[in-house]
Amino acid sequence: MKRLYLEFFFGVSGLFLLCVLAFAFAMRTLAPDYEGEVEIGYVSGVVSILDDVEAQRGQPVADNLLAGFAKRNGLTVTPLPWDDPALSVEMANKVRRLGTAYQSDNHYWVTFGDRARVYYLAPDESASIWQHAETKVAVMWLSFLFTFALYSALMIRLLARRFNQLERATLAFAEGDFHARASENPKDRLGRLNLRFNQMADKIGALIASHKQLSNAVAHELRTPIFRVQCQLDLLESSELSAQQQSYVAGINEDMDELEA
Amino acid sequence: MKRLYLEFFFGVSGLFLLCVLAFAFAMRTLAPDYEGEVEIGYVSGVVSILDDVEAQRGQPVADNLLAGFAKRNGLTVTPLPWDDPALSVEMANKVRRLGTAYQSDNHYWVTFGDRARVYYLAPDESASIWQHAETKVAVMWLSFLFTFALYSALMIRLLARRFNQLERATLAFAEGDFHARASENPKDRLGRLNLRFNQMADKIGALIASHKQLSNAVAHELRTPIFRVQCQLDLLESSELSAQQQSYVAGINEDMDELEA
Repeated sequence: MKRLYLEFFFGVSGLFLLCVLAFAFAMRTLAPDYEGEVEIGYVSGVVSILDDVEAQRGQPVADNLLAGFAKRNGLTVTPLPWDDPALSVEMANKVRRLGTAYQSDNHYWVTFGDRARVYYLAPDESASIWQHAETKVAVMWLSFLFTFALYSALMIRLLARRFNQLERATLAFAEGDFHARASENPKDRLGRLNLRFNQMADKIGALIASHKQLSNAVAHELRTPIFRVQCQLDLLESSELSAQQQSYVAGINEDMDELEA
Repeated sequence: MKRLYLEFFFGVSGLFLLCVLAFAFAMRTLAPDYEGEVEIGYVSGVVSILDDVEAQRGQPVADNLLAGFAKRNGLTVTPLPWDDPALSVEMANKVRRLGTAYQSDNHYWVTFGDRARVYYLAPDESASIWQHAETKVAVMWLSFLFTFALYSALMIRLLARRFNQLERATLAFAEGDFHARASENPKDRLGRLNLRFNQMADKIGALIASHKQLSNAVAHELRTPIFRVQCQLDLLESSELSAQQQSYVAGINEDMDELEA
């Protein structure tokens, strides 16, 4: 059952992983702007506030507030010139147009106020919030794997119960209990295997029974004529016979004894 | 196989759902503050900016900026007095202390600036962002269910191939091919079922062979003495016999013919 167990476990784990990857890919491919929009919602809301702050109180105050916001969210802020090689042309155009652009999970480009520079927000790996998030994802995957392992074990148990049931019937049949049959109850059935086993058991049982019957019948059929021959031989023996004839009768008698045995 | 398929499918789907629920519960229970902190990170960052805005330019400006932020994020803002029944005492204390409190997914309480009122942020159900998020979750669960359905179908196919293999051996055996055996190759095996079937086939095959051998042996053993008896009867018949003796010999001859048949 080890092989079956591994098939069950790796089957469900592998397919599930494929499903998650396909889902993530589909979401990014089919609704790429939307995905970015959702993830960047809060950031772009903050940028619109900072735009207002800069207009009233200047860029340094807004920069300070951005730094405070980033700190609270476990993000680092890196001010960069617009021609920084890390910022692609396409991405730069998007930031100019919208004020924010989504690079990847929790990595954003933003600009506001005088728009003299662009700011790169990225997770501060040492912040407990990201470590916690990483732990959470790891625990989640472990829970999934554990669930699939448990599931495989339960399914194997379920199958094993049926295998054992059919196995016992097979063993009993082999041991000579030709009335042994597998349960055809839906909850014990293994596809049509139980049905087929029972059909085979019926046929083989009938065949063996007919063999036995035949042997008995043959023995019985022989007994009557042998008995009659022996009676007539007795009568012949008690009649007048030449020595030659007596030797024939004695020979026949011997052979009849052999037949009877 | 329908029953097995349903067992596979509902087994994995049900356990997976249980796992997700248990995981969510554990996360909320074991790290309740943390969960809230992560979800409220951005909101509390915004609140700290608004505190600063209020200090410089007054509450109405800050309120306006909050409204703009909420709109961008598909949230509704409801200003409420501190004694509103929807705000529990515990929650109110938390908002007073931290400026923000996490009610449930995307539902927050915030206060800032003069702290005269508390604001309830909740998803604006008509905003496309939440409809998209709902669709995304629905599609994700459907993908999972589809994956599990596919998985169950694949596993059933895998098992069915083995069942069929063993079934064919059983049928062939039942049809009289006593040399039919199931494959004991690990990739075809169903637990110990194939082994047991083959052990049974060996025993039953041997039993039937011995029955046949016995029948043949019996027939052969009879033939020789019958032939000898017939020879001696011929000799007796050709010797001088009384009418009575001839009738005995004729009777014996008749019975021997019967035995030979």
